[in-house]
Amino acid sequence: MLAFLGGTGPEGKGLALRFAMAGEEVVIGSRDAGRAREAAESLLELAPGSAISGDVNEAAAAASIIFVTVPYEGQRTLLENLAPMLAGKLVVTAVAPMSFVRGRGAVALEVDDGSAAQEAQNILSESQVVASFQNISAVKLMDPAVEMEGDVVVCSDHGEAREQVIGLVSKIPKLRGVDGGALSNARYVEQLTTLLVNINRIHKTQSMIKIVGV
Amino acid sequence: MLAFLGGTGPEGKGLALRFAMAGEEVVIGSRDAGRAREAAESLLELAPGSAISGDVNEAAAAASIIFVTVPYEGQRTLLENLAPMLAGKLVVTAVAPMSFVRGRGAVALEVDDGSAAQEAQNILSESQVVASFQNISAVKLMDPAVEMEGDVVVCSDHGEAREQVIGLVSKIPKLRGVDGGALSNARYVEQLTTLLVNINRIHKTQSMIKIVGV
Repeated sequence: MLAFLGGTGPEGKGLALRFAMAGEEVVIGSRDAGRAREAAESLLELAPGSAISGDVNEAAAAASIIFVTVPYEGQRTLLENLAPMLAGKLVVTAVAPMSFVRGRGAVALEVDDGSAAQEAQNILSESQVVASFQNISAVKLMDPAVEMEGDVVVCSDHGEAREQVIGLVSKIPKLRGVDGGALSNARYVEQLTTLLVNINRIHKTQSMIKIVGV
Repeated sequence: MLAFLGGTGPEGKGLALRFAMAGEEVVIGSRDAGRAREAAESLLELAPGSAISGDVNEAAAAASIIFVTVPYEGQRTLLENLAPMLAGKLVVTAVAPMSFVRGRGAVALEVDDGSAAQEAQNILSESQVVASFQNISAVKLMDPAVEMEGDVVVCSDHGEAREQVIGLVSKIPKLRGVDGGALSNARYVEQLTTLLVNINRIHKTQSMIKIVGV
């Protein structure tokens, strides 16, 4: 079972939708259990399969793979509270620290630990943290009629967990997981999200990337 | 005429080769005029057309578009010395600040100005600085038998100069210039180079990127 913490936001809900469409059991977790329930119900209308909901503790407890899809500002508190419950589990963070500045568009935030993903791993020292899915358009994810097409770079200091997530990516048609090596590389993937957001504004599109030659 | 400062290194020489193959007149500039002459001669063996050489001053004076393809460590001194000569000209920087750390691979260097490109624009206040070509594999550029395939993100605070470079990119078959907006976005493109270098090591390849959906 896959849990999506922050699963009421577009990125989490969109990823949950795509994995539900792929036949995975998903659980939507939110601080607001009512909103989580609504999100799970709307998923069931869009995709056959199984979608349940709960508060973040219930969702984290229910699943063996936990996706973190909260805004960066919410990541630290969420993970510090859940750290004991997430010990021994695979935690995928799709967080890309970013703010919006008038006249400049999206701007990547500096993170003391190097990246949101490294910060997550430092908080969750007993979990296997994998950085992935930061570059995927939430708008596209949320529309089941839209086929995703692109590469998803997967970084982790835990090789087996990285391989497991590369396998998960391939459950979504036309997405490909690309081994991005150590978690220290997540920094560049997170910042790439900011570039894509700004490119989207310029070109009025929802872009993704492909790594050509891999 | 296009000048390549640092044109004896693989990135500069490779770019010069591709533009020479496209019929552009190129001039190779180096601190070492002898090495520049050798580089220009080897270009002429690979591509028909026109390739001349000179020291960096001669190359910068001869061309209206100047490519900066030196290692980041050499950029500041080079540009401070050439600033008066580059006033009013279009300067393309392909510099991606990076170091190599044992056990970690490539690591992006922090730049006080935000990026090598912003640093270049701050030094060259009278020039139009465009950030581009940072993600293009020098190894592929240098082999005329290899077809390039990928997207080249082009960032600048000077809209006309940006458009001009987007047009230049398209002279190299199968490369596409993508408007990346303001020069502040160059930071993310430069850091992407570090990710690609690390992906290349993992996958034993020479990767490039495509922006899907643009």
